[in-house]
Amino acid sequence: MTPSTTGPALHVPARDIPVPTSVSPEAQAVLALGLVGPPPVWPALDDPDGWRTYVAEQEKQALGLFDFTKPADGAQVEDLDVDGVRVYAVTPDGVAADDERVYLEIHGSGFIAGGGAMCRSMAVDTAKQVRATVWSVDYRMPPGHPYPAALDDCLAVYRTLLADRRPGQVIIGGPSAGGNLAAALILRARDEGLPLPAAAVLATPAVDLTGAGDSWRTNLGIDNTLTGSFEPPFALYAGGHDLRDPYLSPLFGDLSKGFPPTILLTGTRDLLLSDTVRMHRALRAAGIPADLHVFEAAGHAMFFGTAPEERERTREIRAFCDRHWSRSSPVDAAEPEC
Amino acid sequence: MTPSTTGPALHVPARDIPVPTSVSPEAQAVLALGLVGPPPVWPALDDPDGWRTYVAEQEKQALGLFDFTKPADGAQVEDLDVDGVRVYAVTPDGVAADDERVYLEIHGSGFIAGGGAMCRSMAVDTAKQVRATVWSVDYRMPPGHPYPAALDDCLAVYRTLLADRRPGQVIIGGPSAGGNLAAALILRARDEGLPLPAAAVLATPAVDLTGAGDSWRTNLGIDNTLTGSFEPPFALYAGGHDLRDPYLSPLFGDLSKGFPPTILLTGTRDLLLSDTVRMHRALRAAGIPADLHVFEAAGHAMFFGTAPEERERTREIRAFCDRHWSRSSPVDAAEPEC
Repeated sequence: MTPSTTGPALHVPARDIPVPTSVSPEAQAVLALGLVGPPPVWPALDDPDGWRTYVAEQEKQALGLFDFTKPADGAQVEDLDVDGVRVYAVTPDGVAADDERVYLEIHGSGFIAGGGAMCRSMAVDTAKQVRATVWSVDYRMPPGHPYPAALDDCLAVYRTLLADRRPGQVIIGGPSAGGNLAAALILRARDEGLPLPAAAVLATPAVDLTGAGDSWRTNLGIDNTLTGSFEPPFALYAGGHDLRDPYLSPLFGDLSKGFPPTILLTGTRDLLLSDTVRMHRALRAAGIPADLHVFEAAGHAMFFGTAPEERERTREIRAFCDRHWSRSSPVDAAEPEC
Repeated sequence: MTPSTTGPALHVPARDIPVPTSVSPEAQAVLALGLVGPPPVWPALDDPDGWRTYVAEQEKQALGLFDFTKPADGAQVEDLDVDGVRVYAVTPDGVAADDERVYLEIHGSGFIAGGGAMCRSMAVDTAKQVRATVWSVDYRMPPGHPYPAALDDCLAVYRTLLADRRPGQVIIGGPSAGGNLAAALILRARDEGLPLPAAAVLATPAVDLTGAGDSWRTNLGIDNTLTGSFEPPFALYAGGHDLRDPYLSPLFGDLSKGFPPTILLTGTRDLLLSDTVRMHRALRAAGIPADLHVFEAAGHAMFFGTAPEERERTREIRAFCDRHWSRSSPVDAAEPEC
């Protein structure tokens, strides 16, 4: 991270942290595996081929663990071209044909990965979780397409959605870098005069790309999934733009000018614990209804989908979405709903 | 803490954590002081005089930093004898004489300290914060009076309050050990057939005295105020009773049988971060309205009352209390309010 810090350092001695018994046996089994890997070794910023190779390697490893390319089960997936942007439209079984609610998902993976088959597969998971149609944006990414390409793509898709849906029927959400883009999209859409969506879902969002959040340091070596600084991919994404620009770090946006009700989720071991709780505070300070959920001993990726804690998390997200979707009506569709 | 842990340990190397820029300058100044002291060296459990000396030393040190004995400013304080229990009844200036709302405060300090002048002084602060009458219980403590003495005292005071007030006019709250006692009091009052209060305020509560919470270890050496294990004072308080008894560790109580709406507050550096978020989850799982607030880089005592973050925290607590007090009416007084 950018060393945006001052003052004397707190010296924290080495320590051994046992697997906590305060989580489910399934979560304990994941935590017993330790860190998923060493700190990332990022390519140089001026080495685009290095980034392409890095991302390709990462995706190959991920595909070795999860088969993202297998056909969707329990859902219909359509590949759309929305104003030149690839979108995966997923309708889970059981959703009525005339149900116009849409969860607009912005995928994560540090602004540099997570597209394609992975994006498509995650969209199916999300659709089953929220039990509604998901549109997931396979946005452009660096090194070829730095900021604002990804945000432009998300905005184009949101604009298209609004052409034949009331804004109260749309919820925008995403994890990690996707949480950043979801919040930035809302700020930018508002600034461009578009109506707000019904609600936002910010799952362990990276909302401050300057890296000032304290948990980047306090939870370093404790988060089992994020094992080091993300300064390089953030800088690659920003492409020389000011990291404090609200479209890059939505934490610094003027949230009081309009932002929808928001649910924020993180874990006590998450490197993005600070980003998440700071965004919660900023929303509260701006008078926006915002609910925070922090899961015990969970790192950035929680427990890889294996634990009952994750089903509880899904229930919170679904209940939040249902509460905000159900409030939408033609009358108040253009208003933020609280 | 009780070593209620399993599995291989995560080895976390030594590191230097700089003062974060993500908090106010006032909070940064506090964090720049580092830890307030070395880990506590507790007396042996079978040495009551050792505990009395320890507590007397602690209180002497605290008095050197804050003059708890100075007369209250902006509030009237009355020392009451409630069924044999000393209670400080504080009415802040501006509260109408016929205003029957009461915030029943249970003080903190590890079940072994925080009574007398400190309890009285803290009650004045709380009364100004919530802008309502506070009754603060100067409950009995070990080594002379282990569990259930403190809880008996709190219950006696709550019962007395209910004699001439509707339960919807009473909010129960406390910090740290006081958060434990506040939650335990609600469980016990319910089990004894008393009506629920309007709401509960659990500020960085110690709700699991077995010490299973992960942040006892992950935040060790990072929380600037709590600098070590509290296993000994918890054991002294329990006096041989099972630490998993819900009246000792209310996290393990059956919260679905009735618990009022609750606000929970903690910080990312708090040793009791895990206790707080676990209690939030347990309440949510039981269907109880519960709001969580986590403050960036705050340890157990936040920033000693110097920072704007603490005024923000006060505003959240006051808004929560006002929302729940204002809902109380004679008609639904005996019902939990959501």
